Amino acid sequence: MKKNAVDLNCDLGEGMGVYRAADDEAILQLISSANLACGFHAGDPHVMRRTTELARANGVRVGAHPGLPDMIGFGRRPLAVSPEELRDICTYQIGALRAFVEAAGMKLQHVIQHGALTGMVEKNESLGRAILDSIREVDANLIYLAFDGSYLVDLARSMRFRVVLVAFADRAYDRERRLVSRSVPGAVLHDPAEIEARVTQLLCRGEVTTIDGAAVPLEFDCIMLHGDSQRGLDAARTVANTVRKCGVAVRAMSEL
Amino acid sequence: MKKNAVDLNCDLGEGMGVYRAADDEAILQLISSANLACGFHAGDPHVMRRTTELARANGVRVGAHPGLPDMIGFGRRPLAVSPEELRDICTYQIGALRAFVEAAGMKLQHVIQHGALTGMVEKNESLGRAILDSIREVDANLIYLAFDGSYLVDLARSMRFRVVLVAFADRAYDRERRLVSRSVPGAVLHDPAEIEARVTQLLCRGEVTTIDGAAVPLEFDCIMLHGDSQRGLDAARTVANTVRKCGVAVRAMSEL
Amino acid sequence: MKKNAVDLNCDLGEGMGVYRAADDEAILQLISSANLACGFHAGDPHVMRRTTELARANGVRVGAHPGLPDMIGFGRRPLAVSPEELRDICTYQIGALRAFVEAAGMKLQHVIQHGALTGMVEKNESLGRAILDSIREVDANLIYLAFDGSYLVDLARSMRFRVVLVAFADRAYDRERRLVSRSVPGAVLHDPAEIEARVTQLLCRGEVTTIDGAAVPLEFDCIMLHGDSQRGLDAARTVANTVRKCGVAVRAMSEL
Amino acid sequence: MKKNAVDLNCDLGEGMGVYRAADDEAILQLISSANLACGFHAGDPHVMRRTTELARANGVRVGAHPGLPDMIGFGRRPLAVSPEELRDICTYQIGALRAFVEAAGMKLQHVIQHGALTGMVEKNESLGRAILDSIREVDANLIYLAFDGSYLVDLARSMRFRVVLVAFADRAYDRERRLVSRSVPGAVLHDPAEIEARVTQLLCRGEVTTIDGAAVPLEFDCIMLHGDSQRGLDAARTVANTVRKCGVAVRAMSEL
Repeated sequence: MKKNAVDLNCDLGEGMGVYRAADDEAILQLISSANLACGFHAGDPHVMRRTTELARANGVRVGAHPGLPDMIGFGRRPLAVSPEELRDICTYQIGALRAFVEAAGMKLQHVIQHGALTGMVEKNESLGRAILDSIREVDANLIYLAFDGSYLVDLARSMRFRVVLVAFADRAYDRERRLVSRSVPGAVLHDPAEIEARVTQLLCRGEVTTIDGAAVPLEFDCIMLHGDSQRGLDAARTVANTVRKCGVAVRAMSEL
Repeated sequence: MKKNAVDLNCDLGEGMGVYRAADDEAILQLISSANLACGFHAGDPHVMRRTTELARANGVRVGAHPGLPDMIGFGRRPLAVSPEELRDICTYQIGALRAFVEAAGMKLQHVIQHGALTGMVEKNESLGRAILDSIREVDANLIYLAFDGSYLVDLARSMRFRVVLVAFADRAYDRERRLVSRSVPGAVLHDPAEIEARVTQLLCRGEVTTIDGAAVPLEFDCIMLHGDSQRGLDAARTVANTVRKCGVAVRAMSEL
Repeated sequence: MKKNAVDLNCDLGEGMGVYRAADDEAILQLISSANLACGFHAGDPHVMRRTTELARANGVRVGAHPGLPDMIGFGRRPLAVSPEELRDICTYQIGALRAFVEAAGMKLQHVIQHGALTGMVEKNESLGRAILDSIREVDANLIYLAFDGSYLVDLARSMRFRVVLVAFADRAYDRERRLVSRSVPGAVLHDPAEIEARVTQLLCRGEVTTIDGAAVPLEFDCIMLHGDSQRGLDAARTVANTVRKCGVAVRAMSEL
Repeated sequence: MKKNAVDLNCDLGEGMGVYRAADDEAILQLISSANLACGFHAGDPHVMRRTTELARANGVRVGAHPGLPDMIGFGRRPLAVSPEELRDICTYQIGALRAFVEAAGMKLQHVIQHGALTGMVEKNESLGRAILDSIREVDANLIYLAFDGSYLVDLARSMRFRVVLVAFADRAYDRERRLVSRSVPGAVLHDPAEIEARVTQLLCRGEVTTIDGAAVPLEFDCIMLHGDSQRGLDAARTVANTVRKCGVAVRAMSEL
């Protein structure tokens, strides 16, 4: 019942020009796959190339993290795009990143939408379909990263995508297996002991204790870490150590 | 000695958002290959998709037309990018366009740099190499469009690119086979009779009469048209009619 | 009861770089005040200067038309900005345009939000206040253009703004004096006779016949024209001719 | 002969969206005037507002720091703009910042061009005139910050500008009072003792020892600090301490 292996995953390449968003070098030593910004909400062509090469040097597989065209808002502000517009901006971004990944001698592994797009596609199935259509037209073999409980899991599978489910080690869940909003007290876990307990519970029993104390099953093959703050990095190290202590291998999703 | 076939080529997809730059539908009926803007100096993801689909519907092959990141200047203002920066922005743009071209069931055919980039690479071999490195890392089978007399023709061939040479039917040449600057009187040909004579001379004798009256040989497999003005469109129609009158087939460069 | 004078108003300066959006020269001959794009959804520094100077040469007063930072969507796609973000982007844009207007020896006359912002502020009073706060902090003497029936009329007046109300000569109204959505058949008037009747009804009786045939009173001092299509320009000419036929003067709102 | 007071000055507000470029709070405690980015090479409307308010809270006067429209290159890559284009982008940026400064109850104090613009205007008098024309049309009472030895000092004075000269405490000079390129060893001073000696020499004797050991007179009323790295911040603290030790007051240029 215990997992043999898990993918440790993180958003990466979120700098732009002279700006840095995170300590990419540090997080790359912990993870097995990375979601790279594609130049719309963060990232730029040079950051994309350098981060791709850093990922390869660290044995980390690369996926695309397309976002809304809003650098100032970091892709976190919903923008009323049509399904056609969403499909077009995703295809553009995934295609651009794929060129850097292939130039580095790798294959693009997966796609996961960024920021406000996640809430937008959860609320609007036409937008969800648009992202999946975009991924399929670029490469039907790309893995789609999704969250257990979302309609997108079934939709993506019905479109013959391989879907990998993502769990969070440092975020509170409710009974519907949804993330508790960051505005709620206790929504983000900082205590290393709590994070360790969460990771152990996930890896050994496939369960998560919700914010109101219930244990619910949670499907996942991938744990998402955060490298954009010292706290996130500390939590990421706790997760990585716990995975090792549990005797679970860290492996990119395409090799699970 | 007369050519059997020639490629008629034009810059396309140079609108952005609500803005239109040219009558793409009209020019698509005349040409066999198109250079599509990739979202940096012009174009946007939706324009790139729509123009790609229009091209396919008209039997026109598509190439990438990467430019400087300067929408307000339309990529016509030199920007002091390093070779590494140039390589990165080209790979990004070519990769993005390729995704739309493949989504439409075609293969990307060629690449030609846009606007101020042409002067920049002519003056600086490191920048020229950077563009060729970019094209090669995306797809070494892409054709590179160049101008007879440029060092880039030999450089690209030494890198094992297939190079196709472009001639202008409505621009004056000097004895070094360089285009005469638009600021010089007579630099742009408008008279249909002159354009017809030029095209006939090119197709039947492989020569061009320079602005000072000499006939010089000019290598080419592709004639570049312009669709961004009524005058350009009129000249384009004259060229297409002359090609037909000469009994020369119009065919995309990859099929020559 | 008949008006002595009315302001004819139009959005202007909506080109960008090489792109043109409308025949600004033609519309400038008909109007008395113009709303100029400020570089976020359309316009750029050069377009702003040139349009300001054209306005002055035509005796047309200038107002600011701030929009969302979305050139590709032309500011027509709602973006979830906070009130603080909206205030900041309005102050930035109004301040930038004011510099060009004052450099041309004029005073900035008014402000009216562009595109999706109108629907956003109608639905969210915090956003409405944010725009008014922005205008007030730039210059409390600026006129705010609004629509009869909107809560913003009272709010702006309570903040001691001079408010000028705008009527449309070529758009259908409902009984709540709201514009009928463009997706409804009959929402846009094209027939010159209809437009002439509408303008006459507005000027002589201060009424408008709604899409379902009722006559409702409509307060206004300004009629908005459209110059971004031949149809809009034709309608604008019909309006201007009708105003003249009615013996009503055309005068900028600050001089009414 | 010793100065009574000097302005300590620094570039500020160079973050954008989620990105931070420097520890603005720390440097604000040391300086008397700041050059704020205006949204083209760095900065955004929110950063401009917040930095302006922080400056006021720290008793620091604000100037505009207009740059090239190149966020990815941070305005450091020369872009071939025409004098008209340069004038327009400066007027736009200065006007935008002025709105925030006035909204905070201050008056905009000065202007200094950013990044690659400095080299561009030094090489091309038409561009230098364009910037001065822009400043004059926004507000002829704005102070222009310049460097002793530049033709722009005389040009600006001939246009009736008040010019304030800037010296660097941590950069090597040559005998022509020009900054030594950063690529030359020894071009940047890091040793606190050296910086202290430099500041003392400047304040007490109005001289600077060049990189080849000569003492040359240097006119200045303002010393430029750097807050965009720990080293810069350390050097800034050394300068501020030395100024205090020398018994020289720190005062914004408009109050000298």
